[in-house]
Amino acid sequence: MCPGLWDSRVEAAMNKSRVETFSDGVFAIAITLLVLTIAQPIDYRDLAHQLVESWPSLAAYVVSFLVIGIMWVNHHAIFSHLREIDRGFFYWNLLLLMTIVFIPYPTEVFGEALRRGEGAETAAIFYSVTMTVNALTWSGLWLYASLNRRLLVPEFPEEQRTTSTLLFISGTAVYTVSIAIAFVSPYACLVFQGGLALYYAFDPISRRAERARRE
Amino acid sequence: MCPGLWDSRVEAAMNKSRVETFSDGVFAIAITLLVLTIAQPIDYRDLAHQLVESWPSLAAYVVSFLVIGIMWVNHHAIFSHLREIDRGFFYWNLLLLMTIVFIPYPTEVFGEALRRGEGAETAAIFYSVTMTVNALTWSGLWLYASLNRRLLVPEFPEEQRTTSTLLFISGTAVYTVSIAIAFVSPYACLVFQGGLALYYAFDPISRRAERARRE
Amino acid sequence: MCPGLWDSRVEAAMNKSRVETFSDGVFAIAITLLVLTIAQPIDYRDLAHQLVESWPSLAAYVVSFLVIGIMWVNHHAIFSHLREIDRGFFYWNLLLLMTIVFIPYPTEVFGEALRRGEGAETAAIFYSVTMTVNALTWSGLWLYASLNRRLLVPEFPEEQRTTSTLLFISGTAVYTVSIAIAFVSPYACLVFQGGLALYYAFDPISRRAERARRE
Amino acid sequence: MCPGLWDSRVEAAMNKSRVETFSDGVFAIAITLLVLTIAQPIDYRDLAHQLVESWPSLAAYVVSFLVIGIMWVNHHAIFSHLREIDRGFFYWNLLLLMTIVFIPYPTEVFGEALRRGEGAETAAIFYSVTMTVNALTWSGLWLYASLNRRLLVPEFPEEQRTTSTLLFISGTAVYTVSIAIAFVSPYACLVFQGGLALYYAFDPISRRAERARRE
Repeated sequence: MCPGLWDSRVEAAMNKSRVETFSDGVFAIAITLLVLTIAQPIDYRDLAHQLVESWPSLAAYVVSFLVIGIMWVNHHAIFSHLREIDRGFFYWNLLLLMTIVFIPYPTEVFGEALRRGEGAETAAIFYSVTMTVNALTWSGLWLYASLNRRLLVPEFPEEQRTTSTLLFISGTAVYTVSIAIAFVSPYACLVFQGGLALYYAFDPISRRAERARRE
Repeated sequence: MCPGLWDSRVEAAMNKSRVETFSDGVFAIAITLLVLTIAQPIDYRDLAHQLVESWPSLAAYVVSFLVIGIMWVNHHAIFSHLREIDRGFFYWNLLLLMTIVFIPYPTEVFGEALRRGEGAETAAIFYSVTMTVNALTWSGLWLYASLNRRLLVPEFPEEQRTTSTLLFISGTAVYTVSIAIAFVSPYACLVFQGGLALYYAFDPISRRAERARRE
Repeated sequence: MCPGLWDSRVEAAMNKSRVETFSDGVFAIAITLLVLTIAQPIDYRDLAHQLVESWPSLAAYVVSFLVIGIMWVNHHAIFSHLREIDRGFFYWNLLLLMTIVFIPYPTEVFGEALRRGEGAETAAIFYSVTMTVNALTWSGLWLYASLNRRLLVPEFPEEQRTTSTLLFISGTAVYTVSIAIAFVSPYACLVFQGGLALYYAFDPISRRAERARRE
Repeated sequence: MCPGLWDSRVEAAMNKSRVETFSDGVFAIAITLLVLTIAQPIDYRDLAHQLVESWPSLAAYVVSFLVIGIMWVNHHAIFSHLREIDRGFFYWNLLLLMTIVFIPYPTEVFGEALRRGEGAETAAIFYSVTMTVNALTWSGLWLYASLNRRLLVPEFPEEQRTTSTLLFISGTAVYTVSIAIAFVSPYACLVFQGGLALYYAFDPISRRAERARRE
C-alpha cells in the first residue's frame, strides 16, 4: 500500500461523489449476491415439494433485498446532507459497508434454518444481532458526521439534527428488540424485520417533518 | 437506517440518473452471475460426455442472458420517457430489480432439471411463473409512471401511452401462456422463452409505430 | 418488458457511453468472478500439498484474468473509433458479452481437469472452442461496425479499416489453431492461450502502424 | 480481440478516469465477494456452536475487508498524483488488480484452516505470501509511475517521491516479515495483518509529512 502519499490533493480526490459511487457499487453487488443465498433443491424427483419447502429461503431473500434496497436510499439521504467528507467519515462508511456486505451470510443461515426446522431460533438471533450491529454503525456514521455539525451543510436545520439523532438511537433500540423477538419465535422475527424495512420505506416521520416544514 | 432525514434535498439527490446507474449495476451483476448457474461437471473421466449432457444448463444460460440483456435496454426505454422519478417509482423499480436478480435461481433449477431429466416440468413452470411475476412488475412500473401521465415527459404522445399500456398487459398475458406451455413440454417452454426474448429484441411494434410517426 | 416504447428518444438514451459503462461493469464482474474458479482445498491436513497441486487452477485463473483484462482494453479501442451505435451493434455487443461472461466456466473446468489429471484434453478443447467463439463474435462486432463504415468516425483511415478486418479474421484463425494444439497437449494449449493474451497486450502491429502513420 | 486498432485516439479514450472507474468496480466486487468466503454451517442442530466455531472465518473476512477497503483509498492516492497514464501503467494496474481479486481465495483458506484447526500454519503462510506479492505489485506500480517522474504531476514534491519509494519498499519488507510470523503462529499472523491494515488506515507518516509541509 502507499504510505507517504496521502495529502490534500488525495483528500480532494476522495471526494463525496467518488465514495458514494463506490458505496453504490457495493450496495448493488451485495443486493444481487442475495440470490446465491436461496437454497438449491437437491432431490429433483420431487422438485415441486422441494421448491415449496424452500419458501423460508425465499422469504429471507425478499426481506434482505428490501432491507439493502432501502438502506441504499438512506445512504443517499445522509450523503445529500453533507458538505464534504473526511478520512474519519470514510472509515465509518467502510465499517457500515462491512456490515451490509455481511447480510447475505445471516440471510442464508436464517432461510436454511427455517427450511430445515433446525436451529431456527439461533439463526433468527444471529440475523437480528447482525441488523443491530448494522444499526449501530448507521448511528456511528450519523453521529460522526453530525456532532458539532462537523460535515453537515449549513442549511441543514438544527432541530432536524436533534430529531434525527434521537431517531437513529431509537432505531438501534428497536433492532435490539428484534433480538428479543427472535427468542420468542423465529417466524415472528422475520415478519418483524420485514415490517421494519417497510416502515423505513414509508418513513412516516420524515414525511410529517417535511409537511410541518412546508407549512 | 435513517428516519427523519428524507426531505426535498434527498428527493433531488435520488434523481433519475442515480437510480438508473444503480439499476444498471444490478443488471450487470445479475447477468454475470448467470455463469454460476451452469452445472459443473462432477466426473472428469468422461468429461466430454458430461459437457455435452449439460447443454440444457447452457441453453438456459443463453436464454436468461438474452432476457436480462433485453430487459436492460427496455429499462432505459422507460426511463428515457420520464420527466422525473419519485419515491413510489423508486420502490416499484426496487420490486422489479428483485424479480430480475432472482432470475439466476430458476435458471439454474431449470437447466439442472432438464439435464437430470427429473422435475423438468416443474422447473419449466417455476421459470415461467418467475417471468410472469417479472412481467407483472414491469406493468406495475409502467402503470405507476404513466397513469395520468404522472412522470411522463410532456412530449410523450398520448396515443403511444395507450398502445404501450395495452402491450404491457398483453405481454403479461403471453408470459402466462408460457406457464401453460410448460405443462405440455419443458423444452417447448424454453424455446418459447427464447423466442419471446428475440421478439422483444426485434420489437416489431415499436418499429412500425416509429415508422408511422415519421410519415 | 416494454414493446411500443422504443423510439428515437430511446435510441439517443442508449448512447455509446451508456453501453460502454454497462459493458465495463460486466467486464469488471466477470474478471472478479474468476477467483471463484480456483479449486478450494478439501483435505486441510495436507494443505501445503493440496495448494501446490492446485497450481493449474491458479494458472488458468491468471491466463483468463489477462485475457479478460486485455479484452477490456480492446473493447475501448473499438468504441473509440465509433461515431455512434445502433440497435444492431447493441445486440452484437450483447452476444460478445455473453461469451466473455461465460469464460469463468471453461476456466474452472480447465483448471480442475489439469489438477485432477483427468479429461485435460477435453477441457483444453472446450476452453479453446470458447475462445474461438469469442473471437468470432469480436469479428462479427467489428464487421458490423466497419462494413461500409457504418458506425466508424470519419477520420478513421480507410487502409486501417482493411488491415484491422484482416487481423480480426486471422485472429479467429489463430484461435482455431489453439483447438488443434489442445488435441496435442493441454499444457501447451494453456501456454499458447497465455502467449496470445500477451501478444495482444503488446500488440506489435498497432504499434508499427502507429509509428508508420506518425512518419 | 482487436489488433491494429490501438492508436492515439484509443490512448486518449483509455484515460485515467476510465481506468480508475474500472478499478473501482473491481475493488467493489472483490470486497463484496469476501462474504462468500465465510464458512456456511453444516450441522444446523447445533447451530449456535457452529457459528461460534466459525469465528476465524469471520475474523479473516474482517481483516481482508479492511485490507481491500484501505487499498481502494490508496489506489486513489496514487492516481491523484498522476498526470496521465500509459499502456505500461495500465498493465501494472491489471497485475495489481489480479492480486487483489485473488485475496478472497487465501482468505477463505485461512479462515477455514483456523476453524478446522488443520493446516493453519500453511494457510497463514499462503495468506502472507499473497499479501507480499500484492505489496510487490504496489511497489512496481509506484516505481513505474514515479521513476524519472514518468507520469507524476509536476507539483508532486521531489522529496515526497523519495520518501514514498522508500516507504513502498519497506512496506514490502514488512509483509515479508508477516510470512515469518506465520511460521510462529497463525493467529499472531492474522492479528499482524489486521494491525498492518489499521496502520495504513491511520497512516501516521503521511500525516506527519502533511503537517511538516504546512509549516
